[in-house]
Amino acid sequence: MNEIPPSDGRVSNATSQRMSQYLRCIGAAVRAGGTVSSSELAELVGVSAAQVRRDLAALGHLGQRGVGYDAAALTAAIRKTLGIDRMWKVVVAGAGNLARALLRYRGFADQGFEIVGLFDADPGKVGTIIEGLKVQNIAQLRESVANLGAELGVVSVPSDAAQAVADQMVAAGLKGVMNFAPVLLRLPSHVRSVTVDLASQLEQLAFAVHFAALADRS
Amino acid sequence: MNEIPPSDGRVSNATSQRMSQYLRCIGAAVRAGGTVSSSELAELVGVSAAQVRRDLAALGHLGQRGVGYDAAALTAAIRKTLGIDRMWKVVVAGAGNLARALLRYRGFADQGFEIVGLFDADPGKVGTIIEGLKVQNIAQLRESVANLGAELGVVSVPSDAAQAVADQMVAAGLKGVMNFAPVLLRLPSHVRSVTVDLASQLEQLAFAVHFAALADRS
Repeated sequence: MNEIPPSDGRVSNATSQRMSQYLRCIGAAVRAGGTVSSSELAELVGVSAAQVRRDLAALGHLGQRGVGYDAAALTAAIRKTLGIDRMWKVVVAGAGNLARALLRYRGFADQGFEIVGLFDADPGKVGTIIEGLKVQNIAQLRESVANLGAELGVVSVPSDAAQAVADQMVAAGLKGVMNFAPVLLRLPSHVRSVTVDLASQLEQLAFAVHFAALADRS
Repeated sequence: MNEIPPSDGRVSNATSQRMSQYLRCIGAAVRAGGTVSSSELAELVGVSAAQVRRDLAALGHLGQRGVGYDAAALTAAIRKTLGIDRMWKVVVAGAGNLARALLRYRGFADQGFEIVGLFDADPGKVGTIIEGLKVQNIAQLRESVANLGAELGVVSVPSDAAQAVADQMVAAGLKGVMNFAPVLLRLPSHVRSVTVDLASQLEQLAFAVHFAALADRS
């Protein structure tokens, strides 16, 4: 149980997504005695209490019938399973409004993510200070990533520059890329990625509203 | 086929997510003659070609064996099925860096979303112009939503203000809420929502990198 989480890699993406949501909700659900119940987490996340109990059973014996889960122990166990029981250093490429928003976003540090570097190709931005970080030339990405010990990169550049920036991140040795550009990046198989496609998310929302309206009419 | 899409609401969320991704990839996959093949879409989206053919078969007879799908017809059919074959008007609450990033994001207009209003509670921001939109007092949300004909709202305020803003959006008659605050909003069942939890997305990425490293070691 020291290095390998209990489930040894067998936690699915769907489970890890729910665990991430449990983590977010534990604070809101803490009762006297510092416990949370499966039914409270279930209601907050929108799944069944049985699902919560199944997911959390994989973490070991943390719950007690009629009492619930110890909030602190549960938080630690989930963070360990998700591999976020340590700080992850993150660099951001593209020093625009989105980068500013990310740098001001308190949630990252709380969840174990520290933005340690900010890069741009625009000579007018390089050298300026944004939210306490000096913008570096993207050409220095590789050297800086090595010096900073960063592992994750955020692509917040326009679409037409995204693949080139992602390629530089791969060359710099980053192991994971979070992409905000509305393009699918081609990455080598050893590099993990998540794409946050905001237009696609809005489409999902519009789709849900559209079908709710259809259902009402029928 | 005029008002009700062919699948009549039976397109699942998973299918609609893939359709949204197909939409994003069609441009990149267009060949001479303006066609795209299921195998090209499959490779770009990362699913099987059989899955692509199944998904697109639900849209009607758009493909031709050995020729592929007509890109323009496919785009129109997917947009119709997703309910985005028209413009959707969107208001944004919280006139910070994220709102600036959203307003500058060209992808929204391309995909049929128009940001028509920007709201904040800060008297220092109300009346200022951000990316061509005058910031309005959040107290005017209800009246403005009615006047503007907006249907969707984006919550880009800090966590502690998010629920109150969402309540105002519901009261204003918005039908869908896109939430960027890292909290789970309580919304009435007739209001649809998507949450873009950036820390959660980074957690998913860290989790993937963490397990890739474990797998390499074993």
